[in-house]
Amino acid sequence: MSNRIPVTVLGATGSVGQRFIQLLDGHPYFEVIELTGSKRSVGQPYAQACHWILEQDMPEWAKEMIINESSPETTEALVAFSALPSSVAWMLEPEYASNGIMVCSNASAYRDEPDVPLLMPEINPDHIEMLAHQRTRRAWKGGIVTNPNCTSAGPTVVLKALNDSVGVRNVFAVSLQALSGAGLPGVSAIDIIDNVIPYIGGEEDKVSSEPRKMLGKLEGDTIKTASIEISAHTNRVPVRDGHLVCLSIQLHNPLEIDEARHVLENYQAPIISRNLPSTPQPVIQVLKQEDRPQPRLDRMIGNGMTTVVGRLRLDPIWHIKMVVLSHNTIRGAAGGSIFNAELLFKEGWLG
Amino acid sequence: MSNRIPVTVLGATGSVGQRFIQLLDGHPYFEVIELTGSKRSVGQPYAQACHWILEQDMPEWAKEMIINESSPETTEALVAFSALPSSVAWMLEPEYASNGIMVCSNASAYRDEPDVPLLMPEINPDHIEMLAHQRTRRAWKGGIVTNPNCTSAGPTVVLKALNDSVGVRNVFAVSLQALSGAGLPGVSAIDIIDNVIPYIGGEEDKVSSEPRKMLGKLEGDTIKTASIEISAHTNRVPVRDGHLVCLSIQLHNPLEIDEARHVLENYQAPIISRNLPSTPQPVIQVLKQEDRPQPRLDRMIGNGMTTVVGRLRLDPIWHIKMVVLSHNTIRGAAGGSIFNAELLFKEGWLG
Amino acid sequence: MSNRIPVTVLGATGSVGQRFIQLLDGHPYFEVIELTGSKRSVGQPYAQACHWILEQDMPEWAKEMIINESSPETTEALVAFSALPSSVAWMLEPEYASNGIMVCSNASAYRDEPDVPLLMPEINPDHIEMLAHQRTRRAWKGGIVTNPNCTSAGPTVVLKALNDSVGVRNVFAVSLQALSGAGLPGVSAIDIIDNVIPYIGGEEDKVSSEPRKMLGKLEGDTIKTASIEISAHTNRVPVRDGHLVCLSIQLHNPLEIDEARHVLENYQAPIISRNLPSTPQPVIQVLKQEDRPQPRLDRMIGNGMTTVVGRLRLDPIWHIKMVVLSHNTIRGAAGGSIFNAELLFKEGWLG
Amino acid sequence: MSNRIPVTVLGATGSVGQRFIQLLDGHPYFEVIELTGSKRSVGQPYAQACHWILEQDMPEWAKEMIINESSPETTEALVAFSALPSSVAWMLEPEYASNGIMVCSNASAYRDEPDVPLLMPEINPDHIEMLAHQRTRRAWKGGIVTNPNCTSAGPTVVLKALNDSVGVRNVFAVSLQALSGAGLPGVSAIDIIDNVIPYIGGEEDKVSSEPRKMLGKLEGDTIKTASIEISAHTNRVPVRDGHLVCLSIQLHNPLEIDEARHVLENYQAPIISRNLPSTPQPVIQVLKQEDRPQPRLDRMIGNGMTTVVGRLRLDPIWHIKMVVLSHNTIRGAAGGSIFNAELLFKEGWLG
Repeated sequence: MSNRIPVTVLGATGSVGQRFIQLLDGHPYFEVIELTGSKRSVGQPYAQACHWILEQDMPEWAKEMIINESSPETTEALVAFSALPSSVAWMLEPEYASNGIMVCSNASAYRDEPDVPLLMPEINPDHIEMLAHQRTRRAWKGGIVTNPNCTSAGPTVVLKALNDSVGVRNVFAVSLQALSGAGLPGVSAIDIIDNVIPYIGGEEDKVSSEPRKMLGKLEGDTIKTASIEISAHTNRVPVRDGHLVCLSIQLHNPLEIDEARHVLENYQAPIISRNLPSTPQPVIQVLKQEDRPQPRLDRMIGNGMTTVVGRLRLDPIWHIKMVVLSHNTIRGAAGGSIFNAELLFKEGWLG
Repeated sequence: MSNRIPVTVLGATGSVGQRFIQLLDGHPYFEVIELTGSKRSVGQPYAQACHWILEQDMPEWAKEMIINESSPETTEALVAFSALPSSVAWMLEPEYASNGIMVCSNASAYRDEPDVPLLMPEINPDHIEMLAHQRTRRAWKGGIVTNPNCTSAGPTVVLKALNDSVGVRNVFAVSLQALSGAGLPGVSAIDIIDNVIPYIGGEEDKVSSEPRKMLGKLEGDTIKTASIEISAHTNRVPVRDGHLVCLSIQLHNPLEIDEARHVLENYQAPIISRNLPSTPQPVIQVLKQEDRPQPRLDRMIGNGMTTVVGRLRLDPIWHIKMVVLSHNTIRGAAGGSIFNAELLFKEGWLG
Repeated sequence: MSNRIPVTVLGATGSVGQRFIQLLDGHPYFEVIELTGSKRSVGQPYAQACHWILEQDMPEWAKEMIINESSPETTEALVAFSALPSSVAWMLEPEYASNGIMVCSNASAYRDEPDVPLLMPEINPDHIEMLAHQRTRRAWKGGIVTNPNCTSAGPTVVLKALNDSVGVRNVFAVSLQALSGAGLPGVSAIDIIDNVIPYIGGEEDKVSSEPRKMLGKLEGDTIKTASIEISAHTNRVPVRDGHLVCLSIQLHNPLEIDEARHVLENYQAPIISRNLPSTPQPVIQVLKQEDRPQPRLDRMIGNGMTTVVGRLRLDPIWHIKMVVLSHNTIRGAAGGSIFNAELLFKEGWLG
Repeated sequence: MSNRIPVTVLGATGSVGQRFIQLLDGHPYFEVIELTGSKRSVGQPYAQACHWILEQDMPEWAKEMIINESSPETTEALVAFSALPSSVAWMLEPEYASNGIMVCSNASAYRDEPDVPLLMPEINPDHIEMLAHQRTRRAWKGGIVTNPNCTSAGPTVVLKALNDSVGVRNVFAVSLQALSGAGLPGVSAIDIIDNVIPYIGGEEDKVSSEPRKMLGKLEGDTIKTASIEISAHTNRVPVRDGHLVCLSIQLHNPLEIDEARHVLENYQAPIISRNLPSTPQPVIQVLKQEDRPQPRLDRMIGNGMTTVVGRLRLDPIWHIKMVVLSHNTIRGAAGGSIFNAELLFKEGWLG
């Protein structure tokens, strides 16, 4: 019998839900004992309810699992991985938390709450301490921990490395985002064939605010957000997976390109997060070819957890510019939530 | 018998060459009397030599026209529209000019030369005066007039309107560029399906420097370039036609969004260029829908000559930001060269 | 004041509904006085309710038109162009017909009914006579006339020409169908990027049965279907517009390729349908290039009403094979319904 | 030191050449000791000469390998895997063979030669015996063994299973073929975005003739080709990998669908080929979902060596119809050549 921690995946049939299933297949710490879905799919075996879009086959154990309604009070899971839409997450996640379950959420609903960690273990594992305050304040036995928006993840890793080194002041960020980030059914083919769409609702605000919280300092029971200004343009392009972001960065102190590369390539996760199952190896990879990173070729570097950087060069107005690629449903979503759960497990927060 | 001005199209079989043929079909001023091409195609009828990629049919008159070698000394054309690769343009265009022919060139070879106008009639028709100096200096009876790179064109129009109004200081520009900008055969399908390529050789330099020359002031026989700094990232996306550019702009004086929209919508071409056959109507169109402009839906506004702006909003770091769309083989290439030739005709520079 | 016939478009916001709006813009016989839509859009101006996907702008007159509920009893239209889903058409179209309105329907609901014409004016305009029987039998003052499925249309034209000439016995038909045939939102981008889907629900039955009815003979008040067997495979491909069908055909008597080309190129619509506004000019165009027709390059031949044939060659098992292209939302949908209505008008069936 | 058999890859930089490199990485029988390429790339390290298009990284050992000219007389390889263009293969492959090297060729140059095996080990391993005759007749110490065209491979497997069971008489085959089948640079993006191309030069002849040879019987020193007639239409679609073929089949004796499925699912490779490293497991997989196989989702079944069948149903004219998917650069090219070499090794033909 398995002594892995029992987990549930909330909203298991969507684009991110499917990644959870795939990444949790054979996970050393966690065992999926339940899948939940919307009314439309409750009662059906997962293989029937789910329009599976991943190239790797659906794991056998998932196929016959019957979709449950989300039921915070009766679940036997200790961890709930949430791929819920934010409107639903808003209601359900606190119920799980108050029933003693640790919610590792990809939803945006609670990311901005002052007592909810917005966590990337390779960046700010110390923010996990907010959970103590969260439990006290809300009288929860469980908790909510969130991971950032799929477009925030990659740039935040890069900004962390640079900010630790010479300080970051201002950032322009223009994204070229993949289709899987829009969920299912997502963008209609007829809208995006021979086209790009220069707008993604709500995205630019998230890209501007989330890195500030993640790069912020834990002071007592709150986060003092980093004083970095980010101006974002977000675009949808006809790519399946992998968000590309063009960054121009104003530093506090200038860096030569070689120094910047050195800073990025040598960035390491804090010791506490360095050897978890999902820790990206390396955290940042800097490509030297002039036309990389490209989503199709480079999105799976480090099993989709590595932040991939290329075209590192001087910026004629500010200091440096580059292109950042991050796998949006792995490092930017399901993989990020699981990485968070691994840290919580290692730090003794899971029962 | 026609009394239109006889013209030749140099490099007529490529992506831009085809647009010249299409846009010159039935032109009120110009009549195509000759097409030239590379060794591979010389001697063949155009319909056979040309891998036509446009949706509208090849004009009947072009089909049976035999491709000539480029022969500056014997051509009977008075105007040469050049869609030559820059390496070839470098050699050939001066030969045409010295033989009394006016070269309206889409090639980049001579754009930076101090005595060669880099011309957009809706922006800087006065720069045409450099031709007098060019002829004197080079002892040419003809001349060379260039139009900007396909990615420079749209942003330059926007920057002109803003610069005239409150002054522009700094610009971040990130492009999402169409395939037709890469010529023929251009990008391989297998490289760009499910992908974007964050690099286009030489493009960022052009986007940074060309607007400075076009927004510069004619002082005596040289151009004093505008003191605007532009930092560019250029990307290739799987779109057929239409270059999209995300702009963040620092002004000399702030503008409210309504004021900025007013400035853009009311920008007019100088009187001298206002009623030419190719004058964009309007010069700038500002779309209000939150998810526009989109290349497939908006690239043909104003017959592909209008600069289309959308998502006009405040920038949290500088002043304003927006998305600009311009048809890359029409306003950004063949249409631009033809528009230049119309101005030259109107101003008496053609024979 | 216009003396054109007032018409309504039922289901005006979808992929086919939009084509109706576009093709009826400035139509010499018909004037759109009403648009209907589902509950979700009733009461909104068309420009707001409709996610317009066509490259040409929405006509000005349509933008402010308020979407009505479909109301057969109160409409002032004499003709109802139906782009309704079949399940809705099943209920509503008879109500319009019984209220004296002529329904020109693109829905499949009534295509198989023995007293409902399945009409292509260039093929079987005589089938229009079934309307008399329909009115008697159903006690309708109006009527229902249908056009074929988007994939049946092109092959039927080809089979008609060949059947008239030497007789057709058996047909293999394999389609490569465009996205606009799936309506809105239709196929998700994430399902079709780097992919094809070898299944379209219900399509193969329609492609097998509809040509048999259209090529059938009117005998008394019924159609004796043609004894042609058709085996179909239908596939979805990432193309916006234009259905391609590969045909292998067994004839009653063999034809040389030159003869077959002659038969196809010289096929003419019956005199009664030869000069209507939407009559395809020519009905069939045979391309000679070895790699044509291609959807993107050839779908607009004859304003999207012509059936385009290419790769005409001998079949090693049967007699001849070829590729047929037809614009699925024009000849295969909205254009077909309008063409039918023009015939009805000319023949005096519209009031 | 390795005691694997030394092999060379001829034409290593192309689409199929890259697959050879990838599939030979860590192969239990073969060790790549040499890569050859065209004049353009000779002398360069593979990583520099090769525009790598595969998602998996280039193996480390290949990166620094210097591209040689093809030199049949001096190579130390015992096996030459040929991804040469046919025109080059025509000259070079016999030179390798006469120098004692076994050429396992993906080129079409020698496929039709009466003494050259056209081999699929799961179908006709006995055809390998033609090598003895080939050596005698041509006085070669090595030999040439070919694998079929990428589009022939999958249908041949299906036809073999059915032919063994009830006999196959006639076949209609319509392909939807991936871009990687066109080599590098292959199809231009601008030609295939929003498009399909209903023509692939020479392909239909190969699809018609190759299965007849492979399903033929070895009689003395020649193959008596199977008396099966195949009519093919071949189309290019915007898919990266995976050729889909729609088949309608006339059998000698009818089969119920369940029987046909049973025949396909239970087809086994001859014992001699059943446990080689590349033997597809299973040889044929029959999918039950109504909309499968799809290239993106199913091309990697059985590591790209399995023939995937779906939509098995009765044909209204003949007997059965179905959709067949086969990975074109694995089972249909490099993987097929390697599978052949494994059989040759097992059977003692390699030195």
